[in-house]
Amino acid sequence: MTRVAVDAMGGDRGPEAVVEGALAARGDGIEPVIFGEADLETHGLELVPTTQIVGMDDKPADALRAKEDSSLVRAVKAVADGEADAVVSPGNTGAMLAAGLVYVRRIHGVRRPAIAVPIPAKNGPSVLVDAGANADCRPEHLLQFATMGAVFAEEILGIARPQVRLLSIGEEAEKGNQLTLDAHALLAASDLDFRGNAEGRDILEGAADVLVTDGFTGNVALKTVEGTIRTVLIGLRSEIEATAGGKLGGLLIRPASRRLRSRLDPDTYGGAYLLGLKGLVVIAHGNSSATAIANAIRLAARGVDHDVVGRLAARLAQPAETV
Amino acid sequence: MTRVAVDAMGGDRGPEAVVEGALAARGDGIEPVIFGEADLETHGLELVPTTQIVGMDDKPADALRAKEDSSLVRAVKAVADGEADAVVSPGNTGAMLAAGLVYVRRIHGVRRPAIAVPIPAKNGPSVLVDAGANADCRPEHLLQFATMGAVFAEEILGIARPQVRLLSIGEEAEKGNQLTLDAHALLAASDLDFRGNAEGRDILEGAADVLVTDGFTGNVALKTVEGTIRTVLIGLRSEIEATAGGKLGGLLIRPASRRLRSRLDPDTYGGAYLLGLKGLVVIAHGNSSATAIANAIRLAARGVDHDVVGRLAARLAQPAETV
Repeated sequence: MTRVAVDAMGGDRGPEAVVEGALAARGDGIEPVIFGEADLETHGLELVPTTQIVGMDDKPADALRAKEDSSLVRAVKAVADGEADAVVSPGNTGAMLAAGLVYVRRIHGVRRPAIAVPIPAKNGPSVLVDAGANADCRPEHLLQFATMGAVFAEEILGIARPQVRLLSIGEEAEKGNQLTLDAHALLAASDLDFRGNAEGRDILEGAADVLVTDGFTGNVALKTVEGTIRTVLIGLRSEIEATAGGKLGGLLIRPASRRLRSRLDPDTYGGAYLLGLKGLVVIAHGNSSATAIANAIRLAARGVDHDVVGRLAARLAQPAETV
Repeated sequence: MTRVAVDAMGGDRGPEAVVEGALAARGDGIEPVIFGEADLETHGLELVPTTQIVGMDDKPADALRAKEDSSLVRAVKAVADGEADAVVSPGNTGAMLAAGLVYVRRIHGVRRPAIAVPIPAKNGPSVLVDAGANADCRPEHLLQFATMGAVFAEEILGIARPQVRLLSIGEEAEKGNQLTLDAHALLAASDLDFRGNAEGRDILEGAADVLVTDGFTGNVALKTVEGTIRTVLIGLRSEIEATAGGKLGGLLIRPASRRLRSRLDPDTYGGAYLLGLKGLVVIAHGNSSATAIANAIRLAARGVDHDVVGRLAARLAQPAETV
């Protein structure tokens, strides 16, 4: 039985949506444990009562110092203390990172934990890493992100020998900024299956199984993808509704449009892994639906089943020149 | 009469498309001058015969050294020599930048020329700067990009008091990497109408009139927007064509889809300005259609009419603490 600690209080949609998602994920060897206010209705799920809530705008350091009894901090601690196998929270990403670093701690040899986001790309799933944990990076950080992303692609996405690309501004090795030029050289010398640079336009196409970048660029790119999908689909709907013929056509293409949206939907995976810690930490979108929460819990359980943490530790324990 | 030097040889679609675009832009006080091979049919447009072609893969320094008689270099030189008022090329961006720096030269006080791309955002046009000229930047470069972007927004987009935002990974001032944190402080202390950070998801929404960023992030973001629009529209079409009802619906929404595409079309503006040089340099997309070339030529002429170069020089000549 995989016990997944679930922070019910941090999401934008309230604890009910989180509990609903946890109920949906229960079974198949998964036992969600809810962390939240004492009077929360959990419909039979185990509840660990907590008295504080970390807000989306709380500074990470303040959250840790002043909110030790928050649902977020307690859920993360449950993993550190061995009371849960993994933790899922739709709450404050910075606070999750900080709590993970302080309580779960880094795997030996990991310089910087990184956020790995599964992307529902056209040619199949791929992973973008780092999607926002490290705004300023050095080249050796990017090499390690790539290594961790490759383990994620193998264990979670089921890709045997993941191809790695570096997000840059041209396909040629000499295109990029100083960080990507130096990282390119390190990646090319590594034993990863490195296929060179990719560009922003390749992200949704799925140019690589692992797309590696610093957390600033990764976060800008990810939010640009999300925002552009949204603007295009909303823009199309408003153009369609401008004429009667368009409205009828809109009804007829509704199933197609729904299929596309579900294909591109971030809720398909529900969460992002915080890779590089001694425990399994999954960060869900702040406005996660119940479905997204359920998928994030399943994603966390899959990481436990495949021993992602152990595999990362083994891979990163290899001699430096080969990782 | 505004004379616009047009590099006919550098684009992906061949010189015919460029000449066709130039013919469409002729008139209304615009006189395109074609730079290209001696036997090119220009349908009455003035032709300056050149013997070399800068390829998309040529390294900028090599292009300048070994291809002095290329259509690209000669067209840029025409502006430097006062034989043309502006230059438009769909060719190698790096070579255009290098030729601009060497022949047209920087306006006094400009640290780094930057690429300003008009974005057809939902709330009206905005400008992204730098979209790729400077992969590595310092905070003071970003401040100057913002100032140049504001002049562009005023003169080319017709916005009286442009609002400026900094592309980052959170709206709060303390979110970002070291570059954006430092640039944020400089922008906040400037006399620009600075409204704080914007995120990737705001680019197409038009969160600001001027969106300032380093050339690496700007280029990744721009290509991510382009690629995502493309993937979404192609994905929708393939879902629509999967069923008979969808196909009929697809026919009915075709006009709506065409309106949306034209609204989001980069060809609407046709080109990007290289801001900060002593002459007007416009870089068109490599695969520019005739329409895009025509629009790029009009964009260049508009910059001449509004004396963008003179306005930039005047603005950048102000005391450092106010620009």
